[in-house]
Amino acid sequence: MAGHYVVRNVDRAAPETIAALRAAGVATAHESAGRIGLLGPAIVARQAGTTIAGSAITVSSHPGDNLMLHAAVEMCRPGDILVVTTTSPSTDGMLGDLLATSLRAHGAIGVIMDAGVRDAAELRAMGFPVWTRAISPQGTVKASPGSVNVPIVVCGQTVGPGDVIVADDDGIVVVPRERAAAVLEKAKKRTASEQEKRAKLAAKELGVDMYHLRPLLADLGVEYR
Amino acid sequence: MAGHYVVRNVDRAAPETIAALRAAGVATAHESAGRIGLLGPAIVARQAGTTIAGSAITVSSHPGDNLMLHAAVEMCRPGDILVVTTTSPSTDGMLGDLLATSLRAHGAIGVIMDAGVRDAAELRAMGFPVWTRAISPQGTVKASPGSVNVPIVVCGQTVGPGDVIVADDDGIVVVPRERAAAVLEKAKKRTASEQEKRAKLAAKELGVDMYHLRPLLADLGVEYR
Amino acid sequence: MAGHYVVRNVDRAAPETIAALRAAGVATAHESAGRIGLLGPAIVARQAGTTIAGSAITVSSHPGDNLMLHAAVEMCRPGDILVVTTTSPSTDGMLGDLLATSLRAHGAIGVIMDAGVRDAAELRAMGFPVWTRAISPQGTVKASPGSVNVPIVVCGQTVGPGDVIVADDDGIVVVPRERAAAVLEKAKKRTASEQEKRAKLAAKELGVDMYHLRPLLADLGVEYR
Amino acid sequence: MAGHYVVRNVDRAAPETIAALRAAGVATAHESAGRIGLLGPAIVARQAGTTIAGSAITVSSHPGDNLMLHAAVEMCRPGDILVVTTTSPSTDGMLGDLLATSLRAHGAIGVIMDAGVRDAAELRAMGFPVWTRAISPQGTVKASPGSVNVPIVVCGQTVGPGDVIVADDDGIVVVPRERAAAVLEKAKKRTASEQEKRAKLAAKELGVDMYHLRPLLADLGVEYR
Amino acid sequence: MAGHYVVRNVDRAAPETIAALRAAGVATAHESAGRIGLLGPAIVARQAGTTIAGSAITVSSHPGDNLMLHAAVEMCRPGDILVVTTTSPSTDGMLGDLLATSLRAHGAIGVIMDAGVRDAAELRAMGFPVWTRAISPQGTVKASPGSVNVPIVVCGQTVGPGDVIVADDDGIVVVPRERAAAVLEKAKKRTASEQEKRAKLAAKELGVDMYHLRPLLADLGVEYR
Amino acid sequence: MAGHYVVRNVDRAAPETIAALRAAGVATAHESAGRIGLLGPAIVARQAGTTIAGSAITVSSHPGDNLMLHAAVEMCRPGDILVVTTTSPSTDGMLGDLLATSLRAHGAIGVIMDAGVRDAAELRAMGFPVWTRAISPQGTVKASPGSVNVPIVVCGQTVGPGDVIVADDDGIVVVPRERAAAVLEKAKKRTASEQEKRAKLAAKELGVDMYHLRPLLADLGVEYR
Repeated sequence: MAGHYVVRNVDRAAPETIAALRAAGVATAHESAGRIGLLGPAIVARQAGTTIAGSAITVSSHPGDNLMLHAAVEMCRPGDILVVTTTSPSTDGMLGDLLATSLRAHGAIGVIMDAGVRDAAELRAMGFPVWTRAISPQGTVKASPGSVNVPIVVCGQTVGPGDVIVADDDGIVVVPRERAAAVLEKAKKRTASEQEKRAKLAAKELGVDMYHLRPLLADLGVEYR
Repeated sequence: MAGHYVVRNVDRAAPETIAALRAAGVATAHESAGRIGLLGPAIVARQAGTTIAGSAITVSSHPGDNLMLHAAVEMCRPGDILVVTTTSPSTDGMLGDLLATSLRAHGAIGVIMDAGVRDAAELRAMGFPVWTRAISPQGTVKASPGSVNVPIVVCGQTVGPGDVIVADDDGIVVVPRERAAAVLEKAKKRTASEQEKRAKLAAKELGVDMYHLRPLLADLGVEYR
Repeated sequence: MAGHYVVRNVDRAAPETIAALRAAGVATAHESAGRIGLLGPAIVARQAGTTIAGSAITVSSHPGDNLMLHAAVEMCRPGDILVVTTTSPSTDGMLGDLLATSLRAHGAIGVIMDAGVRDAAELRAMGFPVWTRAISPQGTVKASPGSVNVPIVVCGQTVGPGDVIVADDDGIVVVPRERAAAVLEKAKKRTASEQEKRAKLAAKELGVDMYHLRPLLADLGVEYR
Repeated sequence: MAGHYVVRNVDRAAPETIAALRAAGVATAHESAGRIGLLGPAIVARQAGTTIAGSAITVSSHPGDNLMLHAAVEMCRPGDILVVTTTSPSTDGMLGDLLATSLRAHGAIGVIMDAGVRDAAELRAMGFPVWTRAISPQGTVKASPGSVNVPIVVCGQTVGPGDVIVADDDGIVVVPRERAAAVLEKAKKRTASEQEKRAKLAAKELGVDMYHLRPLLADLGVEYR
Repeated sequence: MAGHYVVRNVDRAAPETIAALRAAGVATAHESAGRIGLLGPAIVARQAGTTIAGSAITVSSHPGDNLMLHAAVEMCRPGDILVVTTTSPSTDGMLGDLLATSLRAHGAIGVIMDAGVRDAAELRAMGFPVWTRAISPQGTVKASPGSVNVPIVVCGQTVGPGDVIVADDDGIVVVPRERAAAVLEKAKKRTASEQEKRAKLAAKELGVDMYHLRPLLADLGVEYR
Repeated sequence: MAGHYVVRNVDRAAPETIAALRAAGVATAHESAGRIGLLGPAIVARQAGTTIAGSAITVSSHPGDNLMLHAAVEMCRPGDILVVTTTSPSTDGMLGDLLATSLRAHGAIGVIMDAGVRDAAELRAMGFPVWTRAISPQGTVKASPGSVNVPIVVCGQTVGPGDVIVADDDGIVVVPRERAAAVLEKAKKRTASEQEKRAKLAAKELGVDMYHLRPLLADLGVEYR
């Protein structure tokens, strides 16, 4: 899509699916999706101990310019998560406490920013979670066009409007909207299986026994001395 | 300046100007200075939730050598901030709890280090704030000449002795001493204006309306669908 | 060593030596070892305020594959620290809360990982400390051979099985097992000397006087103005 | 798509469209596509002065494993370009002169590799051009599944099988197959217009006059002194 | 300076001084200047074997915007070198063969760019040398204000309009205009002394003898075995 | 080893073994050594098309200080290769054409430098090959102790004095002296086998057939469509 668009209608996954994926967490959702969908390690949590899940409102923005973030606020519904990329790499502070206040007023619950944010202390004080490439007070202009709610690429993953985002201290995973229910089913089974394994491992059972890895080690020529 | 100097006399900004710039914070001071003076995103706060402002005591040091930091201690007055760069990139731990103890005894309130520091836990326990490129226990020698209180360049900004440094979780801004009062005037207006805007945005007014951005979006060819 | 081995017998340093090196901390142990043995600044503490010391159980692993970590659990004794490198650079999450549960059940007290870990929040909640290059939920397979308890290289340092690892907020130092007692002797003297110096510096004595640096500064041509 | 697939049928753009986009070059194709489609600056040309254009055969591979590259050779038709990404970041040498010989035998004219290659000198001697993130002799295994001819993401861009790739010393641009003809039309106009501008500029006409930038500079408050 | 300015009058060093500094080369000029003035290792030569020296025309530009480069062309005199920085880090291609054609028509002999350039092959074919942080075809807009011929900071060095720039395969050094003649005197002596040393070293005299380093090695406790 | 030593006696591999490993090249030597011994991708060839092999003379140096390189020259014998690391990361230019002249006069045939070199153009003109982390004219002092011919770690590999170094456009591999003959035997077989494979692949035989990969692809669940 070569022009610049703000797309109003976004299909979202069912709220209970989103809530259950949040409970599963990033690592489990990613494994259950077939070990795909992670937004690289470059975008990191800027507050410890927070997990969010919601529907993506996507923004493609010129670097150093937050005009399209303002256009995106109007598109947010309660529970949405703003996901922002720039057309060239940037660490500028695209968002501060003012824009966070506006986003929260319209229901957004957090931001994934492949660039920088400013007012880090205020955002923490507000309890408004952000995952970002950088913290930088560098201000931005409001001058260049971009798009809202078109598919974007963030850290090697395609994120479409309405896709489910789960983010915690480990990072961020995107689950395509139409796959969300199926991924959730697998995540539930995985969570159950992990609890069992955790109990066994805590009771000193070895992974090499529990996962039957001893024959594999022998086959691979690993020699015990 | 090709030789090595320790300059004793440093003109400083008025204490009340410095205190007021601290209250404004890094992002506002930077915007009020004309969106200039940020010390890049590579030097980061090593303790959350601390804001300091003070007059720069500058140090240009050989990498891996902290001789000139010791020479700089004597030049500190209460409220000063040590700003250190090295003549080649380095991540060595140029400063630990001993030197921090010495700096504090002479009134310094924090350090901006374009290199590494060590004893990170002890510095946090002391409540002595540092902004650094790295944490590294790598020790240093005391063998090479350098300068104190000459203009230095840190992360793309010139910092002169006596310039006002403001540092918080967002990063660091330098305000030239002779511009400090003028920047403060703008910062006060900006802070007032931001409070008004924050209230409007919290009441769900959109930035695209408040900043009159809809005509700009149309002019730029951004199409709503 | 070109094949793949799991070595069962590991000589360890005396527990009281290990405990005393923990009390000395990373920076002091490193200085006392002759300013060598630091594992670079790229592997960072993922929890604030924790110091551990123990004997290294070393793992050389294929990137993106945690088979050999499972093999290593069986080799752990109470107080050991797992030190993991990969044969090519990787940020994948090689270890999560399941493997940490298993390691703890077998006595391991922490992990040094030249790659990524996942389940960062759970690891913090467990109080199981990790020093890692990255946080990443990226899952791994269990398919490729590697070695346990052979000498490995991590961030420019050779780590042998049974070497003493000390890790805190500053980073990580490795002390060869056979040098541990000698390094400890020096560390004790250094700690005592540092307490004296700290007292003097807190009483405003200058480092340039305490370390007799004024003649050196003059010799180096540093001019006071 | 969560499974692993090798897709045999690939729709390609018309050969004459591909040839004409090659003549336009990367920068012009990218501008004509609406300033989108660049594969970031991290993947660089490993031979000077070569421009290629062709249809993408895409590969998604496990890092450190070149099994799927072998599977991809069979899918190549004369004029195709192999575009490879890995599921985690890797610099391993996924391809050397043997695989290049095989690719060439099946008609492939070059490789875009978001990882490393080996045998760099031999590849240059063969005249087989590669654009890669790294040069590394690190060998790989043939053990893990992946996919051929599914959409992949490389350096922030989605590349689908059959999309047109243009690569030269400047970098790489992907033009979606179905947009190739339209982009070419714009590229032709742009090339003509650039020749005109080049002649004017060579005759000392200033860009500020030719592009009518003087009023803009005045509007923006740029003051001549 | 908080506004945006284009300064017309630039004082330049004497042409014969500039030519002689070119003959001395970057490393010698840097040593003769007191081992200062290097523009870091991040900006690299994009053509092998070219040395240039000239007077700096400085540009401070918004990232991703080359408006001010066009404004700078008019300020160039024969023998000048354009030195460009951006107010935030950027790798966009700020300059291609069109702008290079315009610069050459007005006498500029090369460009130092703390960002990217495009049309790398064409620039090499033109014989127009550039030192840049990146090669990137990413296009730019012409929309934001900046300054020409104000002091800028590039890779940790202040560059003023009219300062002497010397650039070769090793990198770039800036010599302040008013120090150029004095630096040249030292450079001449250094070059003469280096020729003598080269002859001795080629005749197998050891540096440890020629520089009288054996006593220093003994003093430092270096033990021969 | 905590002190500083210059070790005079170095055992070297047989000259014909070294010459044959040079003929095999880096990638083959590395594979034949069991896929180990590569010095990472960060140190790169600074001249195209040159392959060298020789015995390592190792140097551990303070960053920004080339004193120990001068001490190392005396230890070189015809055919040796200087391998240099620094005790902290550095990009300074530790070596230029003078030191290269001295090294060549004493028989050294190249340098592997985990730091920077200067006089890049002169080194190319001399035909003296270097593999380095950086090109930087930044000068160094001669003031700090270090060691020559002790085991060092470079880019994750231990290099001992007398170990065989092979370096080409792909990078660098170290083969421990005592394993050199055995690795050579494997390299010869591998080279022969590769010639056979190359012929088959050039004749359009597919790797998936030649390496019998089709059953593996099926087992791994890769589905052809």
